[in-house]
Amino acid sequence: MRTPAANAQLALLLEVAGTPKPGNVDRRRDLEDLRFEHFLAGAVGARDGLEMAANGGAVGAAFERAVAGMAGQRGGNTQFGSLLLLVPLVRAAREELSAPVVEAVCEDTTVADAANFYRAFDHVDVFVDDPPADMEPLDVRRGSDAVPAVEDRGLTLLDIMSRSVPGDDVAREWIEGFERSFRAAERLAAADGPLGDRTAAVFLAELAERPDTLVANRSGEAVAQEVADRAAELVERDALETDPDAVEAFAEELVARGVNPGTTADIAAAGLFVALEREAIDV
Amino acid sequence: MRTPAANAQLALLLEVAGTPKPGNVDRRRDLEDLRFEHFLAGAVGARDGLEMAANGGAVGAAFERAVAGMAGQRGGNTQFGSLLLLVPLVRAAREELSAPVVEAVCEDTTVADAANFYRAFDHVDVFVDDPPADMEPLDVRRGSDAVPAVEDRGLTLLDIMSRSVPGDDVAREWIEGFERSFRAAERLAAADGPLGDRTAAVFLAELAERPDTLVANRSGEAVAQEVADRAAELVERDALETDPDAVEAFAEELVARGVNPGTTADIAAAGLFVALEREAIDV
Repeated sequence: MRTPAANAQLALLLEVAGTPKPGNVDRRRDLEDLRFEHFLAGAVGARDGLEMAANGGAVGAAFERAVAGMAGQRGGNTQFGSLLLLVPLVRAAREELSAPVVEAVCEDTTVADAANFYRAFDHVDVFVDDPPADMEPLDVRRGSDAVPAVEDRGLTLLDIMSRSVPGDDVAREWIEGFERSFRAAERLAAADGPLGDRTAAVFLAELAERPDTLVANRSGEAVAQEVADRAAELVERDALETDPDAVEAFAEELVARGVNPGTTADIAAAGLFVALEREAIDV
Repeated sequence: MRTPAANAQLALLLEVAGTPKPGNVDRRRDLEDLRFEHFLAGAVGARDGLEMAANGGAVGAAFERAVAGMAGQRGGNTQFGSLLLLVPLVRAAREELSAPVVEAVCEDTTVADAANFYRAFDHVDVFVDDPPADMEPLDVRRGSDAVPAVEDRGLTLLDIMSRSVPGDDVAREWIEGFERSFRAAERLAAADGPLGDRTAAVFLAELAERPDTLVANRSGEAVAQEVADRAAELVERDALETDPDAVEAFAEELVARGVNPGTTADIAAAGLFVALEREAIDV
């Protein structure tokens, strides 16, 4: 029986091992400067912060600790978004891993949690879009320099997340009761075969359903929509089963184009955690 | 800066990710009932026991805890031998990671450590050969049932290890100052390229130098010698660089024959830990 922190760490590892995951690092693919080993080291480093969350630590402090540990490798940002989902889920698992409990965890976040969320950006470069002009003092890329502005405005971490929607589907999970994370867990449980294959299937299904917001922010909404449409076409004809070469080719093409659906990977990691905790999947 | 426990966990993950590792699970290969995901879960589960060792816990108790956690997956024995090397190395790293200090850690083991070593066999089936008749009461496969015999004879864990040599090259490390583990670390530091490639190179070099004792115990000494000779031939002509297909073919052939050089993988994991701790390699 694994603890919630151990299951969260395992979810990070199973996520990166799942293959094919078009555009992302997976068991078969590295990017040029971001390799499989960086994700392994990121998962190792995140453990202490996940333990803090499991032991009832504040969400913001646990998140900052997890990110600081995750960032102790040379690949850069590997699992920032995944940890932003996993920390409240692990915190909820202390009591019960359900949508209402994790929503309550998010609602209970404070200004101090928001401040620690900003401090987490000091540890690693995270790709985010420019904020609107009136939000410039709250630009997350300012990291801890933005903390006074956060405190002046009295914003909680949930307030920050709600200001990031739409446009960031990790933040959207905080607002929408982790809807996609729980659905991904159900999909993992319903899928067949080894976990690496199930993870690939759930990744592709989630990629098909909503344009990836990291892709949209980096490459534009048209590219994000194109990627979702092509994933939908592959899902529609059950290509992972009937035409795996087509999915591999799609995976290679996205890597070559530098299109990395990182938000969808974050949802998959959260889904893996929920499914492991509920013993809906097993390793 | 990762802690020794985190580096030991990362060493387990980097070891299984290294590819090609002829005959073993690696980033590209699963065995029929033993898959990559089982090694990921084994490394996750081992963390608490590794933390115990890092915090100064007794070697036997930390090892038993690490094995109990490692065994919490359905693949069976994934990293028993690796942990038998890593636990004393992590314990030594509290003071200094050198041959004399880890030898002192091993010399300081007690009868209680030996008893906990036997208890670790209750958690997982480990392949070992039949003992000589006078050693039957000390057969490790008896697990905790052998503890009274261990206590009657007043054997320490180092005594048990010295009785397993020759025949078990994990135990031999305990007797020989972790000679191969430290050498593997030097080889990792001297190698080029991404860590997965370096791990493969060091694995092949170690496989070439001594017949793998797990292979010898399972398939006979002639097979172990044949595998070592063929590895030596590949090393001799620098096949990982000049003829990678030949190494891949050797890897597939050993998997097909059920020949799994697990002892050599344990040495590689120990070498990865030492190299990480000394910052001779970086992720």
